[in-house]
Amino acid sequence: MKDPYLFQHRNILGIEQLSQADIFYILETARSFREISTRAIKKVPTLKGKTIINFFFEPSTRTRLSFEIAAKRMSADTFNITASTSSVQKGETLIDTAKNLEAMNPDIIIIRHGSSGAPALLTRFVKAGIINAGDGTHEHPSQALLDMMTVRDNKKNIEGLKIAIIGDIAHSRVAHSNILGFTKMGAAVRVAGPATFIPPHLDSLGAVLCTSVEEAITDADVVMALRIQKERQDDPLIPSLREYARFYGINKSLLTHAKPDALIMHPGPINRGVEMNPDVADGDGSVILEQVTNGVAIRMALLYLIMGTQGVSS
Amino acid sequence: MKDPYLFQHRNILGIEQLSQADIFYILETARSFREISTRAIKKVPTLKGKTIINFFFEPSTRTRLSFEIAAKRMSADTFNITASTSSVQKGETLIDTAKNLEAMNPDIIIIRHGSSGAPALLTRFVKAGIINAGDGTHEHPSQALLDMMTVRDNKKNIEGLKIAIIGDIAHSRVAHSNILGFTKMGAAVRVAGPATFIPPHLDSLGAVLCTSVEEAITDADVVMALRIQKERQDDPLIPSLREYARFYGINKSLLTHAKPDALIMHPGPINRGVEMNPDVADGDGSVILEQVTNGVAIRMALLYLIMGTQGVSS
Amino acid sequence: MKDPYLFQHRNILGIEQLSQADIFYILETARSFREISTRAIKKVPTLKGKTIINFFFEPSTRTRLSFEIAAKRMSADTFNITASTSSVQKGETLIDTAKNLEAMNPDIIIIRHGSSGAPALLTRFVKAGIINAGDGTHEHPSQALLDMMTVRDNKKNIEGLKIAIIGDIAHSRVAHSNILGFTKMGAAVRVAGPATFIPPHLDSLGAVLCTSVEEAITDADVVMALRIQKERQDDPLIPSLREYARFYGINKSLLTHAKPDALIMHPGPINRGVEMNPDVADGDGSVILEQVTNGVAIRMALLYLIMGTQGVSS
Repeated sequence: MKDPYLFQHRNILGIEQLSQADIFYILETARSFREISTRAIKKVPTLKGKTIINFFFEPSTRTRLSFEIAAKRMSADTFNITASTSSVQKGETLIDTAKNLEAMNPDIIIIRHGSSGAPALLTRFVKAGIINAGDGTHEHPSQALLDMMTVRDNKKNIEGLKIAIIGDIAHSRVAHSNILGFTKMGAAVRVAGPATFIPPHLDSLGAVLCTSVEEAITDADVVMALRIQKERQDDPLIPSLREYARFYGINKSLLTHAKPDALIMHPGPINRGVEMNPDVADGDGSVILEQVTNGVAIRMALLYLIMGTQGVSS
Repeated sequence: MKDPYLFQHRNILGIEQLSQADIFYILETARSFREISTRAIKKVPTLKGKTIINFFFEPSTRTRLSFEIAAKRMSADTFNITASTSSVQKGETLIDTAKNLEAMNPDIIIIRHGSSGAPALLTRFVKAGIINAGDGTHEHPSQALLDMMTVRDNKKNIEGLKIAIIGDIAHSRVAHSNILGFTKMGAAVRVAGPATFIPPHLDSLGAVLCTSVEEAITDADVVMALRIQKERQDDPLIPSLREYARFYGINKSLLTHAKPDALIMHPGPINRGVEMNPDVADGDGSVILEQVTNGVAIRMALLYLIMGTQGVSS
Repeated sequence: MKDPYLFQHRNILGIEQLSQADIFYILETARSFREISTRAIKKVPTLKGKTIINFFFEPSTRTRLSFEIAAKRMSADTFNITASTSSVQKGETLIDTAKNLEAMNPDIIIIRHGSSGAPALLTRFVKAGIINAGDGTHEHPSQALLDMMTVRDNKKNIEGLKIAIIGDIAHSRVAHSNILGFTKMGAAVRVAGPATFIPPHLDSLGAVLCTSVEEAITDADVVMALRIQKERQDDPLIPSLREYARFYGINKSLLTHAKPDALIMHPGPINRGVEMNPDVADGDGSVILEQVTNGVAIRMALLYLIMGTQGVSS
């Protein structure tokens, strides 16, 4: 990285807005923070006195908890709001809610919302930094960053790698952010899934559509299975889970086509026996739990870097 | 304020129990705390090691969050209990629940409850300080205090002002506390609303009932619209929201009757286009977001002052 | 206690795994911590930088709050997850969820689960210390410990006491843990309840079954009524609450058979007028609120002692 590089994002809306240099810098920062979580005293004073709000309109354990752990390990004060307990129930618009939060002087708002673009909308009305923790079928940038961190850790470089992403590409913000991120970092991304799961704009994203899982996986350095997002589908787009598992579930036999040291990834939570067989999820190449560990580090880095752009030293 | 004044309330149950001197003192204290929320490090050690419980029997984002932010910015430990997750589900009485909380040595319990008088009941069974965060149709003192703070900030003095409160006076604890507070501070309060929204005891509160919104607003220094409290009405007391908006919604044309520099206020969340048009809510005289900002400061002041009466220095 | 005694439990799964020496040591430790909750500043730095997760699959106010208060008074960072907001909703297995939590480097996971054995299962997959906060009809060790602490405080010694436990023995993890604990400490435990509430393996636990409440209570030093666990019964095992109250509810007249200074206990929340009359619950011998106070102290002790086994000094 060149010397005059400066991280300048006040918000993390998507991988789309990040340059290759930004991504490198986030991954390096996260690496240096990861060690904090292994200390006996997992706490640094970096964000003491900062107000960080988790504003989740969709249920989430892992992402909300990961952000909350990241924030508290940096000594921030954290606040959780969920849609079911919020004024949104009372008919308040998202913008009014955002302005009201803003009036309480938060430093960062982390938002998950069912509508694509909700986090971007917020940035027009609040001075607090906004982190998109998943918006509709659009982006989930912290997930893609932790995925890239995990691949880079295990493979040294992302550039030149072959990444296979299997499953519901069309409805997955994880897939979208990962395709953008891995191609930006110089990897080749191939995808496969049922026809109803393939978005029309796929090639504009830089990914190659394969006609079979086998083809997508062949020679892959990374095999990432996506979760069947039952909760984000209005009608059943696949005949049955059993049929999906048969044609698109990752199993040992399929993996013989990938590189012998291929990494196995999944954003979680896994539908075991559907997207992925248990012997694969728990097998040698699986880095699924490293993804979770890196998630905390990535979120610490994002909180830290965003605060840096507000003119506040660490 | 005379020298020997001492704030002596261990509980904040309503504006009714506060003297004019108490209110002045709370507003002054809140003003001095407000600046803390604008610092880079929004945290003072004042309430370190204090246990503050948010005990909410009704859904709330803003009030619960405002108290939680206030408490954490003063370094208190905060705990949230909501009715849906509490023993109240298991049939425990409010008094038993209160005694059980008390046995865990909390310092302050902030309670919101659907029954008028619930916070007062608690004070008979617990040593912890009690703050009423809204009880039935009775009082919501911290809201009235933040409203008075906002008016005083903008108008220098409350005494002599003309305050118009429009809407559901009968079912609004916000209206009740504000009528008590503003009249206590020497303002004249005029109210208007549909006949089903006017309580019988109105004049005993010190407010003047007007037969039209126009009459109530004429020459007003402050125009406060109340929220249609759908969730606290057993049956529909108004024919339709559209009709309510037409006759009682605050719009630019109505405001021509108020003083040119009249403040526009609303306790939130706003039903835009019902109680108030968007161009009014977002217009020049609107101090709606200042109300929210001042809410955090008022709650910091209340927590601080209550703790002071427990013989604990700041 | 002999000098070379060392508390060596990384997990608190049940009273079954604890020796008499362990229980003595926990009770002594809790006694020394209890005073912290009466200080003006209720906070010690002992567990600063520790990550403690409350993972509750069943609704709970008191137990969750008690653990959270205990943790925060020792300066730990706490995180709440409830089943309704967790990935468990999305079909993730308990083991996957546990491994994912583990990947975020928690120090202690406190779990309440509807299935007996769930906490024990977790210990096979996570390095974090596990505390069972109630699993199915199996154990609720922190409750039994706080009960023993309360009895010991009031009666000096547990050894030689006569303990009567009345009610739903079969479905009560509180009863199970208390029978194990009090017999281990040298007390005699007698139980009574409707036939449908008596488990078949009762004598193997060391308790004596009585055919009437009167018989169980006669000469008792401690009378503990259990809660009717409506939420854990698939079908009605008692004809009616009124009939239960008549035959098994603790009232003043029944208590004439107990020792005059008998302690009255209940794990809460009380169904007043069912398991126990109000004049008994609030009467002279009642130590029900002392139980709650001791609960915080016991949980501080458990968190502290578990952390000690992880090689971390206090």
